[in-house]
Amino acid sequence: MSTHHLNIAIVGATGAVGRVAMQLLEARNHPVSHIVAMASARSAGRKLPYNGSEVLVAEAAPELFHSVDVAFISASSAVSRELAPEAVKLGALVIDDGSAFRMEPDVPLVVPEVNGEDVEWHQGIISIPNCTTTPLVMALRALEKAATVERVTVATYQSVSGTGAAAQLELYQQSQAILAGRSYQQNVYPHRIAFNVLPQVDDFLDGGYTVEEQKMVNESRKILHAPHLPMSATCVRVPVQVSHSEAAHIEFNRPLSASEARAALETFPGLAVVDDPTRSVYPMPHHAEGQDDVFVGRIREDASHPRGIALWLACDNLRKGAALNALQILDEVVRRDCLGGRPTSPLYSKGEGQGPPKQGCGSNGVVRGDAPEG
Amino acid sequence: MSTHHLNIAIVGATGAVGRVAMQLLEARNHPVSHIVAMASARSAGRKLPYNGSEVLVAEAAPELFHSVDVAFISASSAVSRELAPEAVKLGALVIDDGSAFRMEPDVPLVVPEVNGEDVEWHQGIISIPNCTTTPLVMALRALEKAATVERVTVATYQSVSGTGAAAQLELYQQSQAILAGRSYQQNVYPHRIAFNVLPQVDDFLDGGYTVEEQKMVNESRKILHAPHLPMSATCVRVPVQVSHSEAAHIEFNRPLSASEARAALETFPGLAVVDDPTRSVYPMPHHAEGQDDVFVGRIREDASHPRGIALWLACDNLRKGAALNALQILDEVVRRDCLGGRPTSPLYSKGEGQGPPKQGCGSNGVVRGDAPEG
Repeated sequence: MSTHHLNIAIVGATGAVGRVAMQLLEARNHPVSHIVAMASARSAGRKLPYNGSEVLVAEAAPELFHSVDVAFISASSAVSRELAPEAVKLGALVIDDGSAFRMEPDVPLVVPEVNGEDVEWHQGIISIPNCTTTPLVMALRALEKAATVERVTVATYQSVSGTGAAAQLELYQQSQAILAGRSYQQNVYPHRIAFNVLPQVDDFLDGGYTVEEQKMVNESRKILHAPHLPMSATCVRVPVQVSHSEAAHIEFNRPLSASEARAALETFPGLAVVDDPTRSVYPMPHHAEGQDDVFVGRIREDASHPRGIALWLACDNLRKGAALNALQILDEVVRRDCLGGRPTSPLYSKGEGQGPPKQGCGSNGVVRGDAPEG
Repeated sequence: MSTHHLNIAIVGATGAVGRVAMQLLEARNHPVSHIVAMASARSAGRKLPYNGSEVLVAEAAPELFHSVDVAFISASSAVSRELAPEAVKLGALVIDDGSAFRMEPDVPLVVPEVNGEDVEWHQGIISIPNCTTTPLVMALRALEKAATVERVTVATYQSVSGTGAAAQLELYQQSQAILAGRSYQQNVYPHRIAFNVLPQVDDFLDGGYTVEEQKMVNESRKILHAPHLPMSATCVRVPVQVSHSEAAHIEFNRPLSASEARAALETFPGLAVVDDPTRSVYPMPHHAEGQDDVFVGRIREDASHPRGIALWLACDNLRKGAALNALQILDEVVRRDCLGGRPTSPLYSKGEGQGPPKQGCGSNGVVRGDAPEG
């Protein structure tokens, strides 16, 4: 099978992330042979623009993964759990945007700039991190070139597109109603989001953290191969349409100057240092929207800790936080010749002969990283 | 002089804080004999509703402080620096909302629930803290009943009314324009605030912190009488009209359980614990607006630190963050019989005979606290 012209399925094609994935596939000139767009029954039948033509959206169903090489799933965890194994059985590599498989020991969780080598041990499914995790682990991995990270606390400012297209509409409609002095509807969030701030993203766990906050911790540890990294997050939804921001305090094993930190961040791929505060130049969601980079600024020595750095991140949660990272994972898989994953994958045991033949991972001679064996 | 019927001047009466001060004076049944409303030349001549009648706004001028007992100033630092000494000379107690005098060693900086005893050493001027400082020091002082605070990091979510009425209009108009797909004006902030987040409040200092962030540190230390408390803030403007929120991580000298922290917070006057996360009950700016209390929730043991607590605050920045705190300071001054301050005050040396006679502070028998002598 050529890795140069792929049949790509997008599950959740009409959603906030799916739409960006379609745009990016076109804009980045991915070697796509055919696109299979899937969504819920409600959205089936819609047509999406692609490469000057249109793609008809089908209701998601397992049989549609026949001859699909790569399936990008951005839907509910329930949909991922139902469809991903079916897609893998039929020979597809699944790149999953949801939380369904992220913490599974045999599923790599990958930000290519941070742990690209982890794609090599995939068993048919590769997960992408939560959209707040990705920018943070990029900054942490960059800083780790200078000193060892010992503790992270972070407060987020998350846009509504992280919830999805329905939340974007809710913010829009609530804002219009409030500005006009009309009553407003409240369907997606438990409270009004327009001109308000919600210190809740996802459900609450015992202990008082939310699922989202725990995700940031668990996922960062997995991606950084730092299973005990002390970390605490407060995840907050703000009335912004696109792009998440984060205020982080990071402690190291030695004092790190702001200029050392800046130098480490500047040289890291995918990070853009935007930090000229006297000219009011710093990352903001409004500027990050539609951009590929993770923006980092407000880099300063933490006045409250002798070995601390404080900084501020902003990132388009639909791009590097989701769709772009997924496509970069595909690039990484192709570059490392790992589209077929490990030949020992248990998930393939029932799928023989139903999909395109799998290549052994690493057959292009890439040396394996220090990833755990799934 | 009776302390029961006071002549009260409000400088900045047409501003966001001044208007709330007028409402609160009426609603709290303060023993007001006469109100002198002052503002800039631009707003002079306007009429403000008060107690079923109207008050004419005059252009602020020193001679208007004749026979004023208490002057509440919420204006620029330049205005405070010009007018406050004049008001003091004429015998008024100045309660100043700005940053002009807060860090002066002979000016008490007071949140009555935290350091009410500090009003006793005033020399004619008492400052109220910045609107992000007040809720935080209330939570910290409450928690100090359980354990010693050793370090604080905080990220804020500040509403535009903290900047003033012009910023409130800018958020309103920008939001309308963006929702309508029109171009928008940007006058108050260096960047668009509608549907965006700005990691800048006030100007930048050397070292990368902003004036606002440094204020939070300096003011908290002064109010808590903890001159070396390690503290770091990231202050962020969010598209909310009224009420500031804060995400804090607090480290103590011993492990503190969430329930110990909650108990300490629940019993502190002026704090309201709103913390039932499984029912999505937590503090939010939308609910805090128009309320007197500082709301605290999301109280949890910090998973990243063995002696840490994380929590979330929301507070109406125009009320407890400004006007209400000012009026509560007045209550505290009257209760402690300190309207005239210390008879040794150097600021009174030129003002003899021009204002109402001053009483010696503490003449009602109130025992002095542990405040430094100004």
